[in-house]
Amino acid sequence: MKKPWAGRFQKETAKSVETFSESVSFDRRLWRVDIEGSIAHARMLAKQGIISRDEALTIIRGLKEIAEEIQRGSLHFDASLEDVHMNIEAALIRKTGAAGAKLHTARSRNDQVALDLRLYLRQEIREIIALIDRFQEVILGLARRHTNTLMPGYTHMQRAQPVVLAHHLLAYFEMFSRDRQRFEDALGRMSVSPLGACALAGTSLPIDRKYVAKLLRFGTVSDNSIDAISDRDFAIEFVSVSAMTMMHTSRLCEDLVLWSTEEFGFIELPDAFATGSSIMPQKKNPDVPELVRGKTGRVYGNLVGILTMMKALPLSYNRDMQEDKIPVFDTVDTVKSVLAVLADMLPHIKFNRRRMAEAASRGFSTATDVAEYLVSKGVPFRTAHEVVGRLVRFCGEGGLAIEDLPIAKLREFSPLFQKDLYRLLSARSSVARKRSAGGTSPVLVAKRIRTLGRARKP
Amino acid sequence: MKKPWAGRFQKETAKSVETFSESVSFDRRLWRVDIEGSIAHARMLAKQGIISRDEALTIIRGLKEIAEEIQRGSLHFDASLEDVHMNIEAALIRKTGAAGAKLHTARSRNDQVALDLRLYLRQEIREIIALIDRFQEVILGLARRHTNTLMPGYTHMQRAQPVVLAHHLLAYFEMFSRDRQRFEDALGRMSVSPLGACALAGTSLPIDRKYVAKLLRFGTVSDNSIDAISDRDFAIEFVSVSAMTMMHTSRLCEDLVLWSTEEFGFIELPDAFATGSSIMPQKKNPDVPELVRGKTGRVYGNLVGILTMMKALPLSYNRDMQEDKIPVFDTVDTVKSVLAVLADMLPHIKFNRRRMAEAASRGFSTATDVAEYLVSKGVPFRTAHEVVGRLVRFCGEGGLAIEDLPIAKLREFSPLFQKDLYRLLSARSSVARKRSAGGTSPVLVAKRIRTLGRARKP
Amino acid sequence: MKKPWAGRFQKETAKSVETFSESVSFDRRLWRVDIEGSIAHARMLAKQGIISRDEALTIIRGLKEIAEEIQRGSLHFDASLEDVHMNIEAALIRKTGAAGAKLHTARSRNDQVALDLRLYLRQEIREIIALIDRFQEVILGLARRHTNTLMPGYTHMQRAQPVVLAHHLLAYFEMFSRDRQRFEDALGRMSVSPLGACALAGTSLPIDRKYVAKLLRFGTVSDNSIDAISDRDFAIEFVSVSAMTMMHTSRLCEDLVLWSTEEFGFIELPDAFATGSSIMPQKKNPDVPELVRGKTGRVYGNLVGILTMMKALPLSYNRDMQEDKIPVFDTVDTVKSVLAVLADMLPHIKFNRRRMAEAASRGFSTATDVAEYLVSKGVPFRTAHEVVGRLVRFCGEGGLAIEDLPIAKLREFSPLFQKDLYRLLSARSSVARKRSAGGTSPVLVAKRIRTLGRARKP
Amino acid sequence: MKKPWAGRFQKETAKSVETFSESVSFDRRLWRVDIEGSIAHARMLAKQGIISRDEALTIIRGLKEIAEEIQRGSLHFDASLEDVHMNIEAALIRKTGAAGAKLHTARSRNDQVALDLRLYLRQEIREIIALIDRFQEVILGLARRHTNTLMPGYTHMQRAQPVVLAHHLLAYFEMFSRDRQRFEDALGRMSVSPLGACALAGTSLPIDRKYVAKLLRFGTVSDNSIDAISDRDFAIEFVSVSAMTMMHTSRLCEDLVLWSTEEFGFIELPDAFATGSSIMPQKKNPDVPELVRGKTGRVYGNLVGILTMMKALPLSYNRDMQEDKIPVFDTVDTVKSVLAVLADMLPHIKFNRRRMAEAASRGFSTATDVAEYLVSKGVPFRTAHEVVGRLVRFCGEGGLAIEDLPIAKLREFSPLFQKDLYRLLSARSSVARKRSAGGTSPVLVAKRIRTLGRARKP
Repeated sequence: MKKPWAGRFQKETAKSVETFSESVSFDRRLWRVDIEGSIAHARMLAKQGIISRDEALTIIRGLKEIAEEIQRGSLHFDASLEDVHMNIEAALIRKTGAAGAKLHTARSRNDQVALDLRLYLRQEIREIIALIDRFQEVILGLARRHTNTLMPGYTHMQRAQPVVLAHHLLAYFEMFSRDRQRFEDALGRMSVSPLGACALAGTSLPIDRKYVAKLLRFGTVSDNSIDAISDRDFAIEFVSVSAMTMMHTSRLCEDLVLWSTEEFGFIELPDAFATGSSIMPQKKNPDVPELVRGKTGRVYGNLVGILTMMKALPLSYNRDMQEDKIPVFDTVDTVKSVLAVLADMLPHIKFNRRRMAEAASRGFSTATDVAEYLVSKGVPFRTAHEVVGRLVRFCGEGGLAIEDLPIAKLREFSPLFQKDLYRLLSARSSVARKRSAGGTSPVLVAKRIRTLGRARKP
Repeated sequence: MKKPWAGRFQKETAKSVETFSESVSFDRRLWRVDIEGSIAHARMLAKQGIISRDEALTIIRGLKEIAEEIQRGSLHFDASLEDVHMNIEAALIRKTGAAGAKLHTARSRNDQVALDLRLYLRQEIREIIALIDRFQEVILGLARRHTNTLMPGYTHMQRAQPVVLAHHLLAYFEMFSRDRQRFEDALGRMSVSPLGACALAGTSLPIDRKYVAKLLRFGTVSDNSIDAISDRDFAIEFVSVSAMTMMHTSRLCEDLVLWSTEEFGFIELPDAFATGSSIMPQKKNPDVPELVRGKTGRVYGNLVGILTMMKALPLSYNRDMQEDKIPVFDTVDTVKSVLAVLADMLPHIKFNRRRMAEAASRGFSTATDVAEYLVSKGVPFRTAHEVVGRLVRFCGEGGLAIEDLPIAKLREFSPLFQKDLYRLLSARSSVARKRSAGGTSPVLVAKRIRTLGRARKP
Repeated sequence: MKKPWAGRFQKETAKSVETFSESVSFDRRLWRVDIEGSIAHARMLAKQGIISRDEALTIIRGLKEIAEEIQRGSLHFDASLEDVHMNIEAALIRKTGAAGAKLHTARSRNDQVALDLRLYLRQEIREIIALIDRFQEVILGLARRHTNTLMPGYTHMQRAQPVVLAHHLLAYFEMFSRDRQRFEDALGRMSVSPLGACALAGTSLPIDRKYVAKLLRFGTVSDNSIDAISDRDFAIEFVSVSAMTMMHTSRLCEDLVLWSTEEFGFIELPDAFATGSSIMPQKKNPDVPELVRGKTGRVYGNLVGILTMMKALPLSYNRDMQEDKIPVFDTVDTVKSVLAVLADMLPHIKFNRRRMAEAASRGFSTATDVAEYLVSKGVPFRTAHEVVGRLVRFCGEGGLAIEDLPIAKLREFSPLFQKDLYRLLSARSSVARKRSAGGTSPVLVAKRIRTLGRARKP
Repeated sequence: MKKPWAGRFQKETAKSVETFSESVSFDRRLWRVDIEGSIAHARMLAKQGIISRDEALTIIRGLKEIAEEIQRGSLHFDASLEDVHMNIEAALIRKTGAAGAKLHTARSRNDQVALDLRLYLRQEIREIIALIDRFQEVILGLARRHTNTLMPGYTHMQRAQPVVLAHHLLAYFEMFSRDRQRFEDALGRMSVSPLGACALAGTSLPIDRKYVAKLLRFGTVSDNSIDAISDRDFAIEFVSVSAMTMMHTSRLCEDLVLWSTEEFGFIELPDAFATGSSIMPQKKNPDVPELVRGKTGRVYGNLVGILTMMKALPLSYNRDMQEDKIPVFDTVDTVKSVLAVLADMLPHIKFNRRRMAEAASRGFSTATDVAEYLVSKGVPFRTAHEVVGRLVRFCGEGGLAIEDLPIAKLREFSPLFQKDLYRLLSARSSVARKRSAGGTSPVLVAKRIRTLGRARKP
């Protein structure tokens, strides 16, 4: 098909170049926002008298028909027309003739694609935020049921101190709250209309950029036309925030994979969220968390891809930037599917409370409480740590727990030990006493859940 | 030296492990904030009656002495004490005995290092923001001098339309404004005190986390103790924002390298900012922008490093996280040095206005103006584009400029061409007419500079 | 559809999990090698008497039919059957019943997918090597025509010394030779059959792994069954070698983009390999090299993705590893299309010899020759460098070339200058004298081209 | 200090630029190879009569003195002399005057640094290969002791089939064998001397590049002078191979961290290779494997850094390339320290054989053996899988093992079950039967250890 820019060219584009450089096979995803942007642009052109009211109506009608055609799959996208923008414009001109041929007035693909990608990402980020909300709701629901479920808190993957499961889950809630906030920030920074920057310099035609921005619900217009078309910060920031979100899901999924090992045995994944083995009849595998973990690499890779692409690109637009779309689209799809499937799965996990509680009680997990006991009696912490360290070693060698020692034996380690010490040694008692702000005490955790729940009411 | 945690251990750490795992060779950089945090912690312990007022004073006095010793280089950091935290605590205990041994009450290295890194980054980000401010001031100053300096605007590295140099420079101003904003956002999100999360579960001792946070000028305290010590979002966000800043500097430096080629000849770098060749006597090389461009990879690498480190780490703290410091420190150093040296260099660049103006006039750079001329006479843009495309091809074949054609010849391409067309064909006239918001018209650009200048007044 | 592993499961897989975890939408690409591997496996099972000869024939016939169906697009791939392996096996069982149900004997998807990916990559790498060969042939052809075409050699993007274009082009030839070698090495290391490792431990059935390996033309079998199924080195090595290849093409394309600027004006891209602007009628853009440059980020991203995925995965197979395919496939497609399009484009580039020669002569590009002249007369190089440096500065201030100075003036800089110096000052004379091994002398370059040409004869 | 290239410059380098652009603070690490290369160069210059024999001797004596001074720390490296090369040359000239001033004849820093980095990496890679050898020796030694130690083989972190520990360890042996091979390949490709490429074009002086190459034990000289100085493939290939090595160590360390959890309890790390907690007296943490895991990110980051740096750099040398050193040096240090500390630690790990064997017996780990039993009686594998799947589900619901069922009950699932089935159900029997090539049968594993042991004898 004849290229709309072919005036000065004497030869046709080589077939291999068309195939190599076309983007419509993937940027067709932008069709809806492309049409949305074009309608706003046409309205503005008419308002400013650059085209007539009738021409605008013809254009808008044409675009709406095209939208319907794409919706029902009847528009043929043609690689020789390069991208979604030219495909839609060509369809419009086929439909409306001279009127359609006026749509690209005071507009370039440079500002058009910058607009489309912003409109697209704005919509997708909103959906991602909604998915985070839903996922956090699920976490909160699960936490509500487990404010008294004991489990070992780990550092270095070693049992450290008892915590309650709700507290552990709420750590993830916090992470996703920060992600959400970062997506909101990105959304705010993205709310700038580039349309009207044209090729790079602006235009001599009397356009009204603010009007277009208002029609498209942007907060403002870009203040520099060169920046408007050279800038992909909004895309990179999106992928970058997504990479962190994926990092958070990868940590959660690592926990889930660990917990579903026979060795931990803390959880059982529902049949509907696990799969089997083609050879081993007994297997039940935590595929979903594994895949989420694996997909983290994908989004990290997208981030590297888009950052590399933009490295040392001179101003202003360069065709390299066409390669922004694949990583952005893939990131959108990955993040959305991950958040959705995790929110689906989480409520169906069966927690093995007994096993978790047992694990929380073993391994001298309340040794720090014993040290704090001594501190409360005036022993410097470093000394207390040393005393309890020796006590733990002594018990360990004999295969004993601290509570197995009689008070007399304990006093050999410190004369300050009293019988009330025994009350401190249970995991339940340990968590109950962790009442410092943000601590794992069930009372505090329950209160935090209520606060978070209230904050989420509309 | 005996490890402060050695109570339960029977054997000493292997020498090779000490060397492998120590961090004091690089985290000593945190000494100032470590002491700042410890002083606040000691104050709080005294206020809450966990240690006595006298003990607190002894501790604080000791810490201040240590600060002075480090300042003058007289404190020996010992790798067998692992990190800056333990080195300082050990020095304090040597100095103050039992009082010092109480400092680590209700605190773990887990929350301490999270605190230190936040305090450190908070300070560094503020300095980076100040450097961005200074750099933007320099850009603005340069732009002020060049609101009428013509140059070719490029797309695809091909001359596209004339712009003014100030407009091109302000595109960079916009980028750094967004970077600045992102650093501010990161700073806000970082203003959360983790201290008091202790190992991971909080503590049974009656601490006042908000008081510490207030002393250290944090906005709030972390709401979840597990998250408080597992979280490195603030570090990743910093590196991530820095990566984008470096991407922006790499683009500017690419422009500078290009402009200083003999082929472009737009600028000359001052002798003081260039270097020579060890073999070729005539060479003068743009080393600074080249190095900036190269250092972009370094910060990208830091981002990948820290993201990889955190991928799929189960909760809560894992020793892997010690590897957060090298990429963070290196990013701080790189970004600061890059911003500083660019701000130093930029004002000394000599622009070759004549050559830039000539380049802006060549290559049919006002062809779009001709098309817009036809549009203003009612020709659909697509048709106008086609007409001008053919005109350009005709001229190109004859080695002519559009203005070389007599009006009669021009009318063969479109009867709508009038003599007034010739007035449009100069670069100067082209930029003057780009009066759409954000466009390159010198009047608009000058106005924008005034606005930006005012916004930066205190 | 019922899962082939569903024996122990009570509930069906959730729809959202099926969609999330299926891979057949992308791993169907492996169908041909999957069938190839299955046929070899069936042959071996029959040879070993594990299945009967008739069963093997039935299986093989069935698989060949399936291959034909896939070829003509009549096999429906079903996401509920997860992947290409299960889809083909299920089709086979539908077709052949009990015989087909025996195919998966002594095989797991774990070793099957490891096999398929190796077979696939082996084929693709061979094609990539052939594309490199073709591309190098094109470079060589171009070099042959330009052994006497002068151009400036650049360091730091500043003109450094004259070289001949063929020499510059052959630098790329060398890079691709190394890439080719690395692909060969990867191919060699990949020639190891994993089939028979089964799930991870091997099997109790009397299989003959070497026979399968021989049928599939593998050099050997893996020596450790756990490694066989846990290993993705071959995939990572492939992406890693590809990343370097892309780096090389990005450098070449950067040169092409630069050379096609108006400022350099060294080349003109053919119309068939350039595109225009939707708004600026005069534009002709080097889209192909720009896109290649941009796609470099994509392959870098794929490398990061796959490395991240494998980071800290415990043995043996984990589902994360399903995410190896997308980056591998995308890398294959990108590298192949890039090599092909560059080989297509390169012969059509029009070099502007006059302009290149002019540029080679300017900017004191033979200053090093002058220094070497002095060296040959006994002046220490450092002194000679200093002398010529001053000479260049003197000329530069007066806007003169060295040859513009009379011999008397030259002798003020060094009494050793004789009239024969003037003969050295031309670019042509400079390249002719660079006769050190690997140097740019046209005679040497032509010889090198002959050597390379001969080496490539079959 | 006056720059050796300062002839044409009128102003001194700005202090901030000196600090920003110097590399001697890190490239001083190259001093030994820099001197080695210079000595070879001087010998060649004398052999070719470019300098006199006496001058060469003076230079060589001077360089050896400088080497001694650096060795004992008495040479002051000066940032104003930029790099290690200029610092050493300046010291030589101070020492030897005119003779020293002749050393840089027919040499540029461009080919000098390319040479130095190759010499440096060649040495370091050899050391890394020796460290791999030692590490593999350690693995082999450990494997020898554990050919009969049962443990669960895992897929998806779920117990899959019993294996022997030696087999699991040898999987790592295989990985490091491939790494070793890749390092060898890189070493071979690196054995090319760039010296004599000079700035980029070669030289008119009658040098003998092959002689220098021979003196420095390089296999050959580079065939293209532009490539010689533009190429950093050897550095990238090194980092890239290292990234894969780190990935392998990260997997091993993940296994170690998991195995040392209380939940797995497979191993205990020796006190000398673990550290404690500053707050929790009972903790013993697997810091070494955690740090190794974390350092993986660092090397991945180095790879991204150096790839990014080289992306789209036009030929030939650009100053960006100075940034190759930090990632290369850091990778060398990281890989060497990781291999060394792991080789130190591994022999001291205490394996809990009883616990591993118990784990190997649980969870229907021999279900596949039961299916293969049916296969050997003619049941199609898919049917056998289904039958055993149902059997496992039945047992699971009743909390039974397969061996708990009487033969009559078993026959309800398949009439082919005979009493000999019970003999297959133990983990020990299962591994013994995995006699397919590369399988986990202790007999095969022991044989493989012997083969590997023999292959490593000198």
